[in-house]
Amino acid sequence: MKRILILNGPNLNLLGRREPEVYGSQTFETYFETLPALFPELDLAYFQSNHEGAILDKLHEVGFSYDGIVLNAGAYTHTSVAIADAISGITTPVIEVHISNVHAREAFRHHSFISPKAAGIIVGFGLKGYELALRSFL
Amino acid sequence: MKRILILNGPNLNLLGRREPEVYGSQTFETYFETLPALFPELDLAYFQSNHEGAILDKLHEVGFSYDGIVLNAGAYTHTSVAIADAISGITTPVIEVHISNVHAREAFRHHSFISPKAAGIIVGFGLKGYELALRSFL
Amino acid sequence: MKRILILNGPNLNLLGRREPEVYGSQTFETYFETLPALFPELDLAYFQSNHEGAILDKLHEVGFSYDGIVLNAGAYTHTSVAIADAISGITTPVIEVHISNVHAREAFRHHSFISPKAAGIIVGFGLKGYELALRSFL
Amino acid sequence: MKRILILNGPNLNLLGRREPEVYGSQTFETYFETLPALFPELDLAYFQSNHEGAILDKLHEVGFSYDGIVLNAGAYTHTSVAIADAISGITTPVIEVHISNVHAREAFRHHSFISPKAAGIIVGFGLKGYELALRSFL
Amino acid sequence: MKRILILNGPNLNLLGRREPEVYGSQTFETYFETLPALFPELDLAYFQSNHEGAILDKLHEVGFSYDGIVLNAGAYTHTSVAIADAISGITTPVIEVHISNVHAREAFRHHSFISPKAAGIIVGFGLKGYELALRSFL
Amino acid sequence: MKRILILNGPNLNLLGRREPEVYGSQTFETYFETLPALFPELDLAYFQSNHEGAILDKLHEVGFSYDGIVLNAGAYTHTSVAIADAISGITTPVIEVHISNVHAREAFRHHSFISPKAAGIIVGFGLKGYELALRSFL
Amino acid sequence: MKRILILNGPNLNLLGRREPEVYGSQTFETYFETLPALFPELDLAYFQSNHEGAILDKLHEVGFSYDGIVLNAGAYTHTSVAIADAISGITTPVIEVHISNVHAREAFRHHSFISPKAAGIIVGFGLKGYELALRSFL
Amino acid sequence: MKRILILNGPNLNLLGRREPEVYGSQTFETYFETLPALFPELDLAYFQSNHEGAILDKLHEVGFSYDGIVLNAGAYTHTSVAIADAISGITTPVIEVHISNVHAREAFRHHSFISPKAAGIIVGFGLKGYELALRSFL
Amino acid sequence: MKRILILNGPNLNLLGRREPEVYGSQTFETYFETLPALFPELDLAYFQSNHEGAILDKLHEVGFSYDGIVLNAGAYTHTSVAIADAISGITTPVIEVHISNVHAREAFRHHSFISPKAAGIIVGFGLKGYELALRSFL
Amino acid sequence: MKRILILNGPNLNLLGRREPEVYGSQTFETYFETLPALFPELDLAYFQSNHEGAILDKLHEVGFSYDGIVLNAGAYTHTSVAIADAISGITTPVIEVHISNVHAREAFRHHSFISPKAAGIIVGFGLKGYELALRSFL
Amino acid sequence: MKRILILNGPNLNLLGRREPEVYGSQTFETYFETLPALFPELDLAYFQSNHEGAILDKLHEVGFSYDGIVLNAGAYTHTSVAIADAISGITTPVIEVHISNVHAREAFRHHSFISPKAAGIIVGFGLKGYELALRSFL
Amino acid sequence: MKRILILNGPNLNLLGRREPEVYGSQTFETYFETLPALFPELDLAYFQSNHEGAILDKLHEVGFSYDGIVLNAGAYTHTSVAIADAISGITTPVIEVHISNVHAREAFRHHSFISPKAAGIIVGFGLKGYELALRSFL
Repeated sequence: MKRILILNGPNLNLLGRREPEVYGSQTFETYFETLPALFPELDLAYFQSNHEGAILDKLHEVGFSYDGIVLNAGAYTHTSVAIADAISGITTPVIEVHISNVHAREAFRHHSFISPKAAGIIVGFGLKGYELALRSFL
Repeated sequence: MKRILILNGPNLNLLGRREPEVYGSQTFETYFETLPALFPELDLAYFQSNHEGAILDKLHEVGFSYDGIVLNAGAYTHTSVAIADAISGITTPVIEVHISNVHAREAFRHHSFISPKAAGIIVGFGLKGYELALRSFL
Repeated sequence: MKRILILNGPNLNLLGRREPEVYGSQTFETYFETLPALFPELDLAYFQSNHEGAILDKLHEVGFSYDGIVLNAGAYTHTSVAIADAISGITTPVIEVHISNVHAREAFRHHSFISPKAAGIIVGFGLKGYELALRSFL
Repeated sequence: MKRILILNGPNLNLLGRREPEVYGSQTFETYFETLPALFPELDLAYFQSNHEGAILDKLHEVGFSYDGIVLNAGAYTHTSVAIADAISGITTPVIEVHISNVHAREAFRHHSFISPKAAGIIVGFGLKGYELALRSFL
Repeated sequence: MKRILILNGPNLNLLGRREPEVYGSQTFETYFETLPALFPELDLAYFQSNHEGAILDKLHEVGFSYDGIVLNAGAYTHTSVAIADAISGITTPVIEVHISNVHAREAFRHHSFISPKAAGIIVGFGLKGYELALRSFL
Repeated sequence: MKRILILNGPNLNLLGRREPEVYGSQTFETYFETLPALFPELDLAYFQSNHEGAILDKLHEVGFSYDGIVLNAGAYTHTSVAIADAISGITTPVIEVHISNVHAREAFRHHSFISPKAAGIIVGFGLKGYELALRSFL
Repeated sequence: MKRILILNGPNLNLLGRREPEVYGSQTFETYFETLPALFPELDLAYFQSNHEGAILDKLHEVGFSYDGIVLNAGAYTHTSVAIADAISGITTPVIEVHISNVHAREAFRHHSFISPKAAGIIVGFGLKGYELALRSFL
Repeated sequence: MKRILILNGPNLNLLGRREPEVYGSQTFETYFETLPALFPELDLAYFQSNHEGAILDKLHEVGFSYDGIVLNAGAYTHTSVAIADAISGITTPVIEVHISNVHAREAFRHHSFISPKAAGIIVGFGLKGYELALRSFL
Repeated sequence: MKRILILNGPNLNLLGRREPEVYGSQTFETYFETLPALFPELDLAYFQSNHEGAILDKLHEVGFSYDGIVLNAGAYTHTSVAIADAISGITTPVIEVHISNVHAREAFRHHSFISPKAAGIIVGFGLKGYELALRSFL
Repeated sequence: MKRILILNGPNLNLLGRREPEVYGSQTFETYFETLPALFPELDLAYFQSNHEGAILDKLHEVGFSYDGIVLNAGAYTHTSVAIADAISGITTPVIEVHISNVHAREAFRHHSFISPKAAGIIVGFGLKGYELALRSFL
Repeated sequence: MKRILILNGPNLNLLGRREPEVYGSQTFETYFETLPALFPELDLAYFQSNHEGAILDKLHEVGFSYDGIVLNAGAYTHTSVAIADAISGITTPVIEVHISNVHAREAFRHHSFISPKAAGIIVGFGLKGYELALRSFL
Repeated sequence: MKRILILNGPNLNLLGRREPEVYGSQTFETYFETLPALFPELDLAYFQSNHEGAILDKLHEVGFSYDGIVLNAGAYTHTSVAIADAISGITTPVIEVHISNVHAREAFRHHSFISPKAAGIIVGFGLKGYELALRSFL
């Protein structure tokens, strides 16, 4: 059974709390609980942090033993060379996911330091993007 | 049953012919024949052209009646404002797909005129990306 | 009697079909039929294509014998050096027209390869811009 | 009867005086006198100033009561955010006119702060451009 | 008692007249009349002009004797090296104020020639920004 | 009584220690103790961290219940998309403050990711800027 | 006997027709007829199109069997990623030729997407450049 | 006897008043009074204005009858397309003068719109630069 | 005896673990143990963190008492204004070290926010660079 | 009999010595000796220097009497305005040659100061490029 | 008696030889011979070289003993940091002269590395510029 | 015994002469004489030239036989592609040294053409940097 980590970056803990009439009141944790049923063949873990350093620590921790990482680095996508370097340094493949279509937003969101290192990139499908990413590991 | 068009742009007809020892000798047509079995709930069509104008004509033709379009515009991704405008003009949602990780290649491939208009973007998964795109319509 | 060609580029065939509640349900063809009455002293022709090559072929075909061309090159305005070169190569004067105010839209629409070669430029007047262009030939 | 102001910016008072063997010896004032006969249905006024501030004052003065303004802001087109802001602040629609084809001249003339605010733009038709602009108000 | 000049630049005379349903029907002059009661320890003067030269003249006139200047240079903020030079040339400290959040608007409004010379900068507080500026002189 | 958080970012803990002959030997904590007397109508709290993630955590913690945040993000102002996103995600208004005139320093300090999201911006007034920010909440 | 295709892009069909007093009245077809006598050891073919897609189709058609291609892509040189990709995809070596010195013309003509993929580049020799290109295959 | 105008732009009226311990207490007017003795063969006039429009008006007034203009446009040097256009429009040659070495100051002072139109440029010689400029007319 | 801190930034804890067949299986900690013997006259300490904030905290902690810091900020070199500010704020001199030749890698690695503040910079000597840095303190 | 100079710039004297297993052990001098037999109708001379000044001296020396110059300016191609000016100043036509495909190398090699002045440009044919250049003089 | 060196850079030895029908047949040497009569109070020397290094050597040689240098560095003006550094390193003041108006020519001629270091700059007066420069030393 | 060349570029011969009260009166030659005692295991040579070509000649001369080169290319660091190419062409490793911290100076000094080719880079240690470079060869 493949071990996969879903790793969320800064501000993604606000899901369910931020403008709930728009984004709904479901938190990512609640959403995450629906995934094992959809992917019984995967052993899923979840981690979120607003700290760039904690994301690096976690990538190092699982990056030589897990079978895959689904990474939504949030705003650090556009500013963190360190996360990109961490992806280069580990052996587990990393799928980059973005909930919204970053290419339809501000110009500084069009560039990702992570993309050149990613094993695949999924953008703009909402939360469904996580499922597509997980499916790619099957 | 949803009707979906897979629409490939310039040079994608070379698959199977170009460096077969590297890319394999399977053409996209052969690959396409495997998809109905994987997606029995979808009514799949396929079109490829090297002509930007023909891609526009096809988008116009199906873009008000089909349920989805999976578009790999190849090199036109980076140069065609016209295709982006066509996607804005039609009502069928368009998923953008790239076989290779364009963000790990030349700088001019990092920008896509199509992305801001796409209903979703899938990059770097090889041919498997088409399957992920189709799955997003389920 | 002067011979004038109205030449429309990509996606302009969607007029009347695209968001009819906004743009109205009148196609450009229907609009074109109203022009001879307004300009009885002009011999008007109309051509539309989504193919950059077809636009070039048409410019070559009429560009040494007609008295004027009203060109709305649509998205090719911003990407086609070839159309600009064709205008330089022919002898018929070309008036550039845009329905919307391209300078109030995305930055990539602010540059036109065609403008430096045009005998005049009319932007942002809606369909009325074609009439102003035709009037300039009187 | 619609009231329209033709508003000319810096250096346009040199018409008729500057290189008369090239531009002719007709001043803009003389040209302006020919317009009422062409547009009997319009109540035309004319104002020219080399002072950016005076152009702003005039825009404010007529910009809530006139039916239209034909503005050739000359060199201020390329440098004046203030004039663009004035156009946003008033209610009278403003048509931007340039006598020469600014897009065929120096690069700094290709950008206009005024264009995004204009109700229409007419470039490169010589003095005839003013007539096309006036006609757009009919 | 400290003498302070509030100096407003182009188009700020339109306050109260421009879109009154949005900005209210209060002119800056009316607003200015409320300030002496709030700042009894300040001797307040007010000047507005749409003329860059008149703003320079005024800065020179008061810039060696007043105790402070609150400057909202409007659009000249982004284009006037001359006003920045005037601030360097006088001895009275100048506080830069903007009613709206210029950093949330068009890119050309993000740069101010005046800021590097200002004794302080206050942006985005609406008319209240003038009061904060005045308070800084207490 | 309004609850307000003053939130200081990296290196601001060095105040009072860094070049005391220049900046004085007063720490920000000491300065902070003087504020309640000046603003008896405000319930003031203070937090400083050198960790971008800790700043995000704090913004999330107070950003749905406090009445205002005065944020001096220090160097993160110029590099942190994440903090800007956090400000968008919370409901408490955030005032951006800088002690020095960042526009008179290196070019990379002229751009702030935070400014477009701020409810107001105060720059270059020294420590007094915090007081002006607090006053804006009265 | 080596098979070589001379492949001309947009507007090159205007040779002989465009400003004949300058460029002469010789068409490229007429010029092409003189080449077999000069290169009896080469089996020469000629194709011209204004359609980017047709150029791609032709490159694919001959690009795995011919011994060489002499390509003057005209304006597509500066805008077509697709043609560059086609050259990468085929096995026949491609020599890039330009009649005029593109580096002495507008800045946008200084960049060629094709050059990095070309087996050789010949610029500015007039029609003689085609002969130098053919000679390189001997 | 040649008629020459010395034309000074914004803020140059501050000479003698601004930092007199540095720049001295001599005003430009006082300096100007010393010039006739040095150049008895020239009929010298002097004009200064902080108004761009007034500079234009003056250039137009003398620009078809005087034998030369010595122009120090101050800050307008770097921002005024209008003054550059005026120089193109008149027949009197214009010498551009700067007191300080603008190329050793901020980057935005390195570009002059006026220079390409000037009959000569003299920079960095202090007030002596005016004398060198006058001498060039002998 | 001089006290020196070697301070390593993000991902440098992967040394010895990342591609050991290439980089060797020696960790930095193991390497660090060899240094006291080489530099008996130095009192050496070592700290590594993936957290930008922790690096700032450490710089503040030792930056007023140690005699030198050897800093390899890893990826934060290219993105952290905060670390550069910290170096300005402390009194201990900081030597910047990079193991690889960053100037031979991606363009975004060519710029260092730290370099302008460093007391010296050593790049591209592998681990030996740390020894050269330490030697500079002798 | 036409006199032609082959003029090689910096580092081209390393041919035959640099990586001989790759580039071969043939020096340019040895190669040059083979040319007279190929071009009996040309009087060939050869000069190489690593000194930009010596290249200028040589261009001046032969540039009014020789019939042609084949110039490979090596790295000076990308940095020397002086050589470009020399080509403008002399009357002998200059053909620019590069052995490798400079457009497939680093970005700074894509620009040539020499190209706009060259009578023809030949790139990427290896040493054969010199022969094509010589042939163009026949 | 002041010792002054006139120092000319690359290609200026072509004066009198290059397009004599345009520039005249007078060499700079001949022109130089007319200067002692005009400036009897100056001890004039002249040096020209096409070698950047020779210009540096000469600047070093005279730069601590002469009273002034008039430098026309020709094309090296735009490319030589080394000459700018030499001017910083010597004590003799250097006047920069250009015969033509470099600001009316190609964009790369608008920037001078030398200008920020020059004691004065004279541009566009033809050979007369040297005389103005010499006069500045009186 | 390893043979090492110290190679200094333009203006470095001014050391000891330029601002001696700042830089001291020691010339590099005098400094060089102290090195053999410090590095008895190295056979040291020294060469300085202001001529880019002479630096190239020297690199070629020693670059296949010496064990190391310590290169301070001075201003040519920032402008010479030719020196970078020479380093690529030779087999001796080259250490790049700069006396001052070039990254704390003008922006054009932040880029080095040499760095990507260097075996190591040492910046900002004053003359001590040469010693660190030499030590790296031990």
